[in-house]
Amino acid sequence: MKLKVKKMDWSSGNSLICILNTEDAARLNAHRGERILIRGIKNHKKITATLDESLYEIKEGEIGLNYEASKLLDAIDGMYCEIEPVAISEAVRYIKDKLDGKRLSKDQINKIVEGITNNNLSSIELTYFVAGSYIRGLSLQETSYLTEAMYKTGDVLKFDSELVVDKHCIGGVAGNRTTPIVVSIVAAAGLTIPKTSSRSITSPAGTADAMEVIFNVELKEDDIFRVVKKTGGCMIWGGALSLAPADDKIIRIEHPMAIDSFEQMVASVLAKKKSVSSDIVLIDIPVGRYAKIKSMKEGLRLAELFRGVSKRIGLRTEVIITKANGPIGRGIGPALEARDTLRIFENHPLAPADLKKKGIMLSGKLLELAGKANKGTGNKMAEEIMNSGMARDKFFEIARAQGLRIDSSSKVSLGQYKTFIRANKSGVVSLIRNDLIAYAARIAGAPKDKGAGIYLKALRGEKVEKNQILFELYAENMKKLNEATKYINQNNPYLIKQ
Amino acid sequence: MKLKVKKMDWSSGNSLICILNTEDAARLNAHRGERILIRGIKNHKKITATLDESLYEIKEGEIGLNYEASKLLDAIDGMYCEIEPVAISEAVRYIKDKLDGKRLSKDQINKIVEGITNNNLSSIELTYFVAGSYIRGLSLQETSYLTEAMYKTGDVLKFDSELVVDKHCIGGVAGNRTTPIVVSIVAAAGLTIPKTSSRSITSPAGTADAMEVIFNVELKEDDIFRVVKKTGGCMIWGGALSLAPADDKIIRIEHPMAIDSFEQMVASVLAKKKSVSSDIVLIDIPVGRYAKIKSMKEGLRLAELFRGVSKRIGLRTEVIITKANGPIGRGIGPALEARDTLRIFENHPLAPADLKKKGIMLSGKLLELAGKANKGTGNKMAEEIMNSGMARDKFFEIARAQGLRIDSSSKVSLGQYKTFIRANKSGVVSLIRNDLIAYAARIAGAPKDKGAGIYLKALRGEKVEKNQILFELYAENMKKLNEATKYINQNNPYLIKQ
Repeated sequence: MKLKVKKMDWSSGNSLICILNTEDAARLNAHRGERILIRGIKNHKKITATLDESLYEIKEGEIGLNYEASKLLDAIDGMYCEIEPVAISEAVRYIKDKLDGKRLSKDQINKIVEGITNNNLSSIELTYFVAGSYIRGLSLQETSYLTEAMYKTGDVLKFDSELVVDKHCIGGVAGNRTTPIVVSIVAAAGLTIPKTSSRSITSPAGTADAMEVIFNVELKEDDIFRVVKKTGGCMIWGGALSLAPADDKIIRIEHPMAIDSFEQMVASVLAKKKSVSSDIVLIDIPVGRYAKIKSMKEGLRLAELFRGVSKRIGLRTEVIITKANGPIGRGIGPALEARDTLRIFENHPLAPADLKKKGIMLSGKLLELAGKANKGTGNKMAEEIMNSGMARDKFFEIARAQGLRIDSSSKVSLGQYKTFIRANKSGVVSLIRNDLIAYAARIAGAPKDKGAGIYLKALRGEKVEKNQILFELYAENMKKLNEATKYINQNNPYLIKQ
Repeated sequence: MKLKVKKMDWSSGNSLICILNTEDAARLNAHRGERILIRGIKNHKKITATLDESLYEIKEGEIGLNYEASKLLDAIDGMYCEIEPVAISEAVRYIKDKLDGKRLSKDQINKIVEGITNNNLSSIELTYFVAGSYIRGLSLQETSYLTEAMYKTGDVLKFDSELVVDKHCIGGVAGNRTTPIVVSIVAAAGLTIPKTSSRSITSPAGTADAMEVIFNVELKEDDIFRVVKKTGGCMIWGGALSLAPADDKIIRIEHPMAIDSFEQMVASVLAKKKSVSSDIVLIDIPVGRYAKIKSMKEGLRLAELFRGVSKRIGLRTEVIITKANGPIGRGIGPALEARDTLRIFENHPLAPADLKKKGIMLSGKLLELAGKANKGTGNKMAEEIMNSGMARDKFFEIARAQGLRIDSSSKVSLGQYKTFIRANKSGVVSLIRNDLIAYAARIAGAPKDKGAGIYLKALRGEKVEKNQILFELYAENMKKLNEATKYINQNNPYLIKQ
């Protein structure tokens, strides 16, 4: 059937959608949810779109295409297309197999991931895949296939270096901004570490949110190569690149249901690492009662999965499990975390010792893994690089190459609305609830409001007097400050024992 | 936040969707997939819509609403709304529980079904519910709660009758149009049988598709009451009514993945029966190698589920398992099945004996169940009603009350393109593949093309000579006739043994 394109100015955010007039759909014997092959008669481009139904607007002889479908077909209004219904896709059959509890082969997983990447699966079909994988589970082998398929269907950045190292923290701990420390020390030692980071989805700040207070993190591919060639490292937001694009689409489907299976997490992290051609990866799994991973048993299972998949896809991965008894560092929120980072490099009296120590420890591990330091001497080497100022110099070298914004902790601008939260009794701080601190910082406006967040004055184990300031709360408007204060009054993150 | 409505001329077919400008979304701290409460400032209407993202078109200060959202909010362009993000809905939490393998309570299932009915769940969330129920299963108790919730969230038709009877066949057998026979006999015996039927989704014809060749099947509620009051029965398409609307939405999500769990099937059928206030229901489960239900074991499990749920929701249900060794009747496709029906009432020499016999048998069962006939005498009574002409009179009385179109089998118009399929050898017809016959009839154009389909000349067990006509193939255009012929040549539905 030959139809004329009508571009529709809406986006599904994902799937390719076409709309037919009811009469044309009947003639084609095509129904809602079925797939339609659309071929541009002049430009010879081909796409497969899902048929939806519109209650009005499409005339006989026309085919409506949403933004994604128009774009992929290079469509212009009025252009003629040949259309025909297509049989159920292979990918859909394999998704059904997963729902039915079957193991999927490498080829079957490739077909599904290609369908996701090319938008040939509808969001309903993708949801079935996510739900099926979540409930039925993915074996180690399946998870490895998924990881490989995800990075192979995206761009892979290759650097002029024999060895590329990388680190990743699975998150769930407020503060904990170790990336700038590790990248600076490791690059200063002469290693190549092209670090991509994410923005926050559910936390008060992602590394990209915090670092862009200090320098530009949105770089094009050419600029990434330039920065890494010049400095040995980079600290960029990975979201603007097309690294493992299927992964981003899967995450988008998981989000509404707060689904986070270990298998999807491992595939997601390791696919991104392979996308920047990493050879050696250090994974940090923080474990704590109020963190993402709550028990050592879970932590060990996740570590084992990271190791097993890494082995199968040719990555040298070391996993370390760290304690997460509360926030790490003092600042929570983009600007406050940026200030902590700068203070560490400045050797400032208020630099958070715990964060600095953890960053050095992770760097030491990476130096040992990459053969820059002998076993047992990595920590010392990392410490020297930090204390000598080499790490600071490397940090600013990278920041300048990416586009420096501020060069001193004193120039970080915080939210102009501020309040102090005080101790309601004297005693010792026995616990700072990581989850409540993070949520309060989000209510205050982080990460969208860069200057919003929390600054911890009293740390765990410290003795405090009644009415002493426990932490400062920052916001960029009065309403959010009040809401966050109200939340804290009802959900006190500090436990003080007499 | 106060925003101005912009109506968007597209329909999701289901969910309420709103679009915000990126800046407004950031200010609201709302993300794609999250829920937004929208309140008309003047008209005080309230809806909850899912936030989607648009790549262009929505200006700051505006909120785009899709067709469904605009309709429910009674929105006009430029009208002001107060909007705020809402917390994750209870229904979503319970869906997550089902994914995690938990049993759901009555209240939890009610919340989910309300969310489906009111379009407060996105299609992604609904897919998670369908996938979770499919993989984790629903217990007998959960299936009963689901059934009740589905009919209680829709309209329930009440008739002036002490006893309402009904029948349902789970389908999967070509031909097999027993409804007009059963309704006519049972209503002629003085019982009330307001029968709703569906249109075909995957078969060559639903009862509604076939009967509308003879009479109008799309009745408004008032007309249904009038017809049933006058005649004791009706044969209508249920799809135009709002009976158990959540069920239709669930079916729409199941369709792309061809999911049909027994639990969803039972809930769907029995909810529709409760929606017309049925007291007594007869369920026909055809079992055969090429039918929907392939083994007696499966048939028995399904029967048990029908009985168990019926008991819990207060329905007197009898289930019978029938043999389905091939198509029942001779015609497959709307017009051809309508002709079989008329021929049975006309006592025509070509009336299909197997279909007539099965219709009488089912009627007899219902007469016994409703106390019109003593145990063991129902079949005889049904036969007498048929042979005396009372069933024919009742059939035309109902047809006239609904809007008669044709009154004789000779007036049924078939597809003008026709071909004969002949035996390639002599022997005995040992099998007619139900699935292949049905698929070939669909390729020929059924059910959209009313006159398309297949008419069986040789039946199972009959002796045929080489080149004798096995069946006739009808279509409304040459192309479809050729495609169906090609399909049959590659997938011969007749097995002939020498």
